[in-house]
Amino acid sequence: MASALTEAGGRTRLFVAEGLAEGATFALGPEQSHYLLHVLRARSGDRVLLFNGRDGEWQAEIAAGKRALTVTCRARTRMQAGVPDIWLLFAPVKKTPSDYLAQKATELGAARLQPVFTRRTIVTRVNSARLAANAAEAAQQSDRLSLPETPEPLTLEKALTAWPEERRLYFCDEGGDAQPLAEAARGTRGPAAILTGPEGGFDPAERAMLRAHAFVVPVTLGPRILRADTAALAALAIWQSVAGDFR
Amino acid sequence: MASALTEAGGRTRLFVAEGLAEGATFALGPEQSHYLLHVLRARSGDRVLLFNGRDGEWQAEIAAGKRALTVTCRARTRMQAGVPDIWLLFAPVKKTPSDYLAQKATELGAARLQPVFTRRTIVTRVNSARLAANAAEAAQQSDRLSLPETPEPLTLEKALTAWPEERRLYFCDEGGDAQPLAEAARGTRGPAAILTGPEGGFDPAERAMLRAHAFVVPVTLGPRILRADTAALAALAIWQSVAGDFR
Repeated sequence: MASALTEAGGRTRLFVAEGLAEGATFALGPEQSHYLLHVLRARSGDRVLLFNGRDGEWQAEIAAGKRALTVTCRARTRMQAGVPDIWLLFAPVKKTPSDYLAQKATELGAARLQPVFTRRTIVTRVNSARLAANAAEAAQQSDRLSLPETPEPLTLEKALTAWPEERRLYFCDEGGDAQPLAEAARGTRGPAAILTGPEGGFDPAERAMLRAHAFVVPVTLGPRILRADTAALAALAIWQSVAGDFR
Repeated sequence: MASALTEAGGRTRLFVAEGLAEGATFALGPEQSHYLLHVLRARSGDRVLLFNGRDGEWQAEIAAGKRALTVTCRARTRMQAGVPDIWLLFAPVKKTPSDYLAQKATELGAARLQPVFTRRTIVTRVNSARLAANAAEAAQQSDRLSLPETPEPLTLEKALTAWPEERRLYFCDEGGDAQPLAEAARGTRGPAAILTGPEGGFDPAERAMLRAHAFVVPVTLGPRILRADTAALAALAIWQSVAGDFR
């Protein structure tokens, strides 16, 4: 019986921390070993793809022990490549939508997932390890060679105080006179970020504070009310299509 | 103690089947009555917004009985308005992603949600009532005045055979030479549709069949592999931003 790894055409991809180079050999951690051995029924000699965000993608050969697996890099299959320099700043939402948001934003090629506490944010805590795990899973499945950065949450004030001036911040504003994101971003170059609010939106003081910064570009996502996670994903897709690598 | 309805500033919206006009009075169904009475603690004299997809949006006054609620239309708050003429044809996915897809596509302003069985579609059954219920919930929350149509599933072959030639069909194709959706759709007018496949993509015969039709426009959504639901939502957001009402 062929293993599920073989059936998948050797397309199973794993994110690892170790350095990858011709002949590099190391043991996989218990979760990845379990997955390969007991879910995919991997056997010695099977192949798997590895990436670490630095050294490209490598085809590696599995040596299966009883409990853990060792992998040995055999050939580089892709050179390292990043994603466009687009950050997503988002007000954290409750657990399930957060998982979904982290996965989808990774698929859509966000370079950084930055939780931001705003005045109307109801969630008071972010599970950063869970955010990173969701991002890693989505990176593996979406063929990314890098994981998005998942820094610890910041308050909106701190995020703005420390802001790198050259990075344009598209502020998804529900109220009023903002221009459509596709028009604001079309054909622009250079670092950018998208900011989406919590379910209750931004409060008036936050909106005024945001609009006072030269790097902030208020934008609209159309006439309907979007949930927080929908807005974040729609904005990322639109930005990628007019200024990123969907082109 | 104020009811949650009053606290929400009278912004609670319900989709109903009945005709809406000045003075129109009718009883709400058991689910909506329960929601207003026991979740939002509605009392007689409270206000709620109603829409039915035909008669605009109305502010209505509640008369609370012990088990059911009666509503009376008092004033029209918005004239009827539709969404852009964009259909989403999607290969059905398993339960939770399907719920999510129906909700998000409704928020993003799809006029029709059409499940389509393709050769690699794993799901064999679509719960159309559940699809419609998810769409109604999202319409209520997203400020839409219309629900998307949710017809029974079709096979891809049948959908193409019955296709109205003047409706452009953007086929989200993973392979090869397709142009970016934003470029293909920018500034176009007239009816359109987006077709996204199942997790395993379209098979070669399907791709050839699709590309043989003059109304089919193959498009790409960038270099990463998107999950089926991510692709559908990204494509809708991009279309709305270059040809729909995000502009």
